[in-house]
Amino acid sequence: MITIRVINPNTTASMTDTIRQAAQAVAGPDTRIVATNPSMGPVSIESHYDEALASVGVLDEVRQGEQEGTDGYVLACFGDPGLHAAQELASGSVVGIAQAAFHAASLLGRSFAIVTTLSRTLGRARDLVLEYGFERQCVAYRACEVPVLGLDSDPDGAYRALLAECESTIKDCDPDVIVLGCAGMAGMCKRLCNTLHRPVIDGVAAGVTLVEGLVRMGVGTAKCGEFAETPAKTITGLLAPFTRE
Amino acid sequence: MITIRVINPNTTASMTDTIRQAAQAVAGPDTRIVATNPSMGPVSIESHYDEALASVGVLDEVRQGEQEGTDGYVLACFGDPGLHAAQELASGSVVGIAQAAFHAASLLGRSFAIVTTLSRTLGRARDLVLEYGFERQCVAYRACEVPVLGLDSDPDGAYRALLAECESTIKDCDPDVIVLGCAGMAGMCKRLCNTLHRPVIDGVAAGVTLVEGLVRMGVGTAKCGEFAETPAKTITGLLAPFTRE
Amino acid sequence: MITIRVINPNTTASMTDTIRQAAQAVAGPDTRIVATNPSMGPVSIESHYDEALASVGVLDEVRQGEQEGTDGYVLACFGDPGLHAAQELASGSVVGIAQAAFHAASLLGRSFAIVTTLSRTLGRARDLVLEYGFERQCVAYRACEVPVLGLDSDPDGAYRALLAECESTIKDCDPDVIVLGCAGMAGMCKRLCNTLHRPVIDGVAAGVTLVEGLVRMGVGTAKCGEFAETPAKTITGLLAPFTRE
Amino acid sequence: MITIRVINPNTTASMTDTIRQAAQAVAGPDTRIVATNPSMGPVSIESHYDEALASVGVLDEVRQGEQEGTDGYVLACFGDPGLHAAQELASGSVVGIAQAAFHAASLLGRSFAIVTTLSRTLGRARDLVLEYGFERQCVAYRACEVPVLGLDSDPDGAYRALLAECESTIKDCDPDVIVLGCAGMAGMCKRLCNTLHRPVIDGVAAGVTLVEGLVRMGVGTAKCGEFAETPAKTITGLLAPFTRE
Amino acid sequence: MITIRVINPNTTASMTDTIRQAAQAVAGPDTRIVATNPSMGPVSIESHYDEALASVGVLDEVRQGEQEGTDGYVLACFGDPGLHAAQELASGSVVGIAQAAFHAASLLGRSFAIVTTLSRTLGRARDLVLEYGFERQCVAYRACEVPVLGLDSDPDGAYRALLAECESTIKDCDPDVIVLGCAGMAGMCKRLCNTLHRPVIDGVAAGVTLVEGLVRMGVGTAKCGEFAETPAKTITGLLAPFTRE
Amino acid sequence: MITIRVINPNTTASMTDTIRQAAQAVAGPDTRIVATNPSMGPVSIESHYDEALASVGVLDEVRQGEQEGTDGYVLACFGDPGLHAAQELASGSVVGIAQAAFHAASLLGRSFAIVTTLSRTLGRARDLVLEYGFERQCVAYRACEVPVLGLDSDPDGAYRALLAECESTIKDCDPDVIVLGCAGMAGMCKRLCNTLHRPVIDGVAAGVTLVEGLVRMGVGTAKCGEFAETPAKTITGLLAPFTRE
Repeated sequence: MITIRVINPNTTASMTDTIRQAAQAVAGPDTRIVATNPSMGPVSIESHYDEALASVGVLDEVRQGEQEGTDGYVLACFGDPGLHAAQELASGSVVGIAQAAFHAASLLGRSFAIVTTLSRTLGRARDLVLEYGFERQCVAYRACEVPVLGLDSDPDGAYRALLAECESTIKDCDPDVIVLGCAGMAGMCKRLCNTLHRPVIDGVAAGVTLVEGLVRMGVGTAKCGEFAETPAKTITGLLAPFTRE
Repeated sequence: MITIRVINPNTTASMTDTIRQAAQAVAGPDTRIVATNPSMGPVSIESHYDEALASVGVLDEVRQGEQEGTDGYVLACFGDPGLHAAQELASGSVVGIAQAAFHAASLLGRSFAIVTTLSRTLGRARDLVLEYGFERQCVAYRACEVPVLGLDSDPDGAYRALLAECESTIKDCDPDVIVLGCAGMAGMCKRLCNTLHRPVIDGVAAGVTLVEGLVRMGVGTAKCGEFAETPAKTITGLLAPFTRE
Repeated sequence: MITIRVINPNTTASMTDTIRQAAQAVAGPDTRIVATNPSMGPVSIESHYDEALASVGVLDEVRQGEQEGTDGYVLACFGDPGLHAAQELASGSVVGIAQAAFHAASLLGRSFAIVTTLSRTLGRARDLVLEYGFERQCVAYRACEVPVLGLDSDPDGAYRALLAECESTIKDCDPDVIVLGCAGMAGMCKRLCNTLHRPVIDGVAAGVTLVEGLVRMGVGTAKCGEFAETPAKTITGLLAPFTRE
Repeated sequence: MITIRVINPNTTASMTDTIRQAAQAVAGPDTRIVATNPSMGPVSIESHYDEALASVGVLDEVRQGEQEGTDGYVLACFGDPGLHAAQELASGSVVGIAQAAFHAASLLGRSFAIVTTLSRTLGRARDLVLEYGFERQCVAYRACEVPVLGLDSDPDGAYRALLAECESTIKDCDPDVIVLGCAGMAGMCKRLCNTLHRPVIDGVAAGVTLVEGLVRMGVGTAKCGEFAETPAKTITGLLAPFTRE
Repeated sequence: MITIRVINPNTTASMTDTIRQAAQAVAGPDTRIVATNPSMGPVSIESHYDEALASVGVLDEVRQGEQEGTDGYVLACFGDPGLHAAQELASGSVVGIAQAAFHAASLLGRSFAIVTTLSRTLGRARDLVLEYGFERQCVAYRACEVPVLGLDSDPDGAYRALLAECESTIKDCDPDVIVLGCAGMAGMCKRLCNTLHRPVIDGVAAGVTLVEGLVRMGVGTAKCGEFAETPAKTITGLLAPFTRE
Repeated sequence: MITIRVINPNTTASMTDTIRQAAQAVAGPDTRIVATNPSMGPVSIESHYDEALASVGVLDEVRQGEQEGTDGYVLACFGDPGLHAAQELASGSVVGIAQAAFHAASLLGRSFAIVTTLSRTLGRARDLVLEYGFERQCVAYRACEVPVLGLDSDPDGAYRALLAECESTIKDCDPDVIVLGCAGMAGMCKRLCNTLHRPVIDGVAAGVTLVEGLVRMGVGTAKCGEFAETPAKTITGLLAPFTRE
């Protein structure tokens, strides 16, 4: 039995449910999905500020995951908040959904486009595309201008806006693959894929299959240097619970 | 049931057996591995000449796979011969083992090193690293100077040479991850991993888990442009059997 | 006397004639052009599948060229099929026409645009631009959507489509230079150049002058490593004639 | 009067003193330095985990700075923790000391080397070099393996180790400029510069002069998109004080 | 007292006045600006030819600056003519205004656009963006097609053309920051900034603050290799006055 | 008859003789070589200062070449001084010898190394490698530390030093091809090539064959934008003879 902890970095439980379903839909028969969200942090992540704060909750969740026994982690926010810190904390592998989606998309064609929620988050997407090395494959950065929680509160309107943006992206840039830029879009992936007649990638599904594969291969994050276990450190003030002894 | 065809692009059956075992060891409980090799082509692939010829057999194998019903393909030679042509022919996804290994390695650390058989094949490895976008992650290109068939005929000597080259690579370059540069090394991966105390990636295993994941996600190669089905074409002379009507 | 073998990688003799004329038009007074095409392979090259198969015929032609005494080779298909393998086989230099055209274009201005036949072949052009290092110079990838054999069967219609695509490329991207993306366009180069008032490059002409220059300089492909002579190897089945002893 | 808030992202007050002195030493006659550190977070920053947590305190400090009236900010930790989030919060400009040091170094020569405390932090340095666009200028990543707090507790030993590492870096790589990889090294900069006979850059000093210059020019962070003011957002649990209304 | 020599590389005195004012407006209270132009060279710089000739006058001015005692130099033409040669001659630091503007712009946002005088000079801007490493940050190269001396002879018309080009650039590309591509535009910077509601950078101001900062930090160009003092050399003919003994 | 003007940018006539011989040795039977040097400028080019001044003489020589009727130009100094300005002035094509050597070398193998005279000139070589797009192919920058005029005054000592540096470069970096970094080394090229058993490229020979090829193809520098004819301009003072009316 493989246990994968899928962490929704924001604190909105309904979004954690969406993520859980997307994860379970692609997990192998011998894989157990633990979908969860932290008890602290922003209700949605739509700015660099939100993302910096969300990283804290992600670390709390990885700490818990390690105590419960976890083979690998998926960070289910498209900014991959706290990824490198989580890789230090976890004994197995950790994959962010932007990272996962980029890898999956690049296996299916020459080019992909990101279609996300708010345009102000596209800067973070550019940073990640560069850091992970997909700057030649990613040919468009687009936003449907629906806020994250709007995906939940008005799913029909959100779907229409997202579809329209995907269609205009295809018309303008003709990417081989579309990458959805928010975990909250996971439930719309299949329908978009069928409508657009080209692969559409939800990073939650991509992340679960990648982590599952790494676990089957018996490998995890390299622990020989940068990602070696986080050393002991006193943390003060409000964050004192994060002290590592 | 997921069916993955793992194609050994050379014509040496014992190497196909090694590849089959590595593939089966990581396949999910609901995945069937069909390991095979073409009836034509070089007995091993150690030059650009070998690789050009091996592509032909790969295409023959994909054609057969399509007739038999196949969900996805792994091309089990580190030069990924015929990959783009295979992507045209196949209705599902196709992954080469160099490609697969690079993706897996980059999920586990900041840097990886390739350790392969003969140094004359490192040029091809450089071409692939660049094409796939891993030029920042790949920090060393090394060879143990054991020929491909030597992995089979003298496994102990080959293992010692490979281990020595890995150790000297770690000493010189300190990569987070080692990528094995030949499908024939698949059987040595676990042992190397245990000895070297950092992740060692065999592309066959990586390829199987990646293709399995893509099948679970319900996506395959984008068929909207470059990789649309190969059009009809008359092929003449010796290659006439490859005519597409 | 310098002997240059210009290989048309497809099996259509009329296209070989077009290529011969373009080659002879630029050859120096002391250069002999041998234009030829293989006896096997696709009648035109418009997909990754066609290109993989065409490589085989290219190798057969280089083998013959070596027996006859050849100073250098031009591969006259814009996908440069089998280039690296040909470099192993040949004792002199080998240049592909995409490669040649990119080099010539970059000597004449800051930027160039590729205008080719079918858009599905532009992926290959992108791979070559990247591999050869011209990604900053190449600012547009365009197709007139005339199939390769249509250049021959309806030259007037093809010229009009090609001219229209060149003009729209200049309007959209203002490249300093146009690179023609198919050897079959060689006969239209001069007329386009005169009409468009900027340099238009036919790779066949560029390839012949580059190879001629390398021969005059007394240099050929480096034979010290990756491109050293192809080693002996048993090739089986349909491809057995390609065995090297 | 220009007011620059120099934020030490860790919670060690003696290090804030070192930073204050370095800042004041280069500030113009009409510039007031406010050196400070947050009330929460790690006592030193030597891992991705420390850095994620330190970002929270940085945001608290910027919030305070905005209330007090601040023209610009310097983030005085070489990982530039929370930089983009701080740019959203602040009305003026914000510069990280890694960023500042890279800019200053690249004005003084063709190449620079980073010499930092612990080698496990070099991955973060690589991420920043790439993100900011200095990958061609930065030719070496080195560590003297002195922990951050060791700079304070044993300054003589630390200086000797740092000097030795600088000297060996110059011998191995001959960089035009040395960049010090920790704010805690600020007090050693002048002495190293005099000893090594090439420019040595302390990012604190570089950051102060850059921010001062931007203030004199009358410009701050672009507020038209990605870095527009952080929108209102409910933050829950332990981090509730960071809610923005 | 810090002395900065701001060299206008063309020979038009009214433009030197514009540059002097822009420099003085941002200089610190303890900084003295010496604005000057050479006695030889083109009256404006709008081609590679002009720029090659302008470099000579720049070197003459640096030579004079060294005799008079100068802490640092700003080269106030957007092609940064003679920068590397000036770095050899000067004992302190030398900054070109294109270089300075790129550095300042990249501190204020993710992207910038260059808006210059004549489009034929944009090739030089591309060369500098690449050389300095800002190819990811610079997202647009635009020209208002006003000649350099037209900025002086018809300032109102020039301002309107420049504003229109900035507005259309923002509409097309949405850069975070605008970089003005000519020292002669310095006087229009503040007004554009106020009108466009995003940072507009004049390289003269940026250059002065950067050089001032480097002087405050006590560092200058690395003198250990490429930029070591220009060696003695006989210069013949018309240029004999430039002989170095 | 094709006329190629090969310009030695320095004023040392004996070096012009060496260059003439190298050019004539590779020119086609119908090509006339005019080897020349300007009447003004440095006696050798070994710094950015020398190079800036040498550009002036190059422009004088191109002006004369245009009056005499010239099909194309080679700039025979490895810094390619004044190349872009010369491209504006000339109606045909202009190639620098660094540029030419990089193009030729990259046709003959995967990698090349530059071996030049003084190490202080390697910065310029790096700038050119980047500008022309050969940063992946150029794997080493080396200097034998023989001054340019030392190639002439002590040819035997110079040859020994150059050979030793080439051999140590091959041992350290194993480049496929060696590129000689000074026109004054042209006469040593053949001997080095024979001794080192891999291609050695002299840029003078490469430049002549490239220009000859472009002339045979009937193309020259694009005159539609950046390199359109240099516009009229008043040049003042010492440089007044360069005024264009």
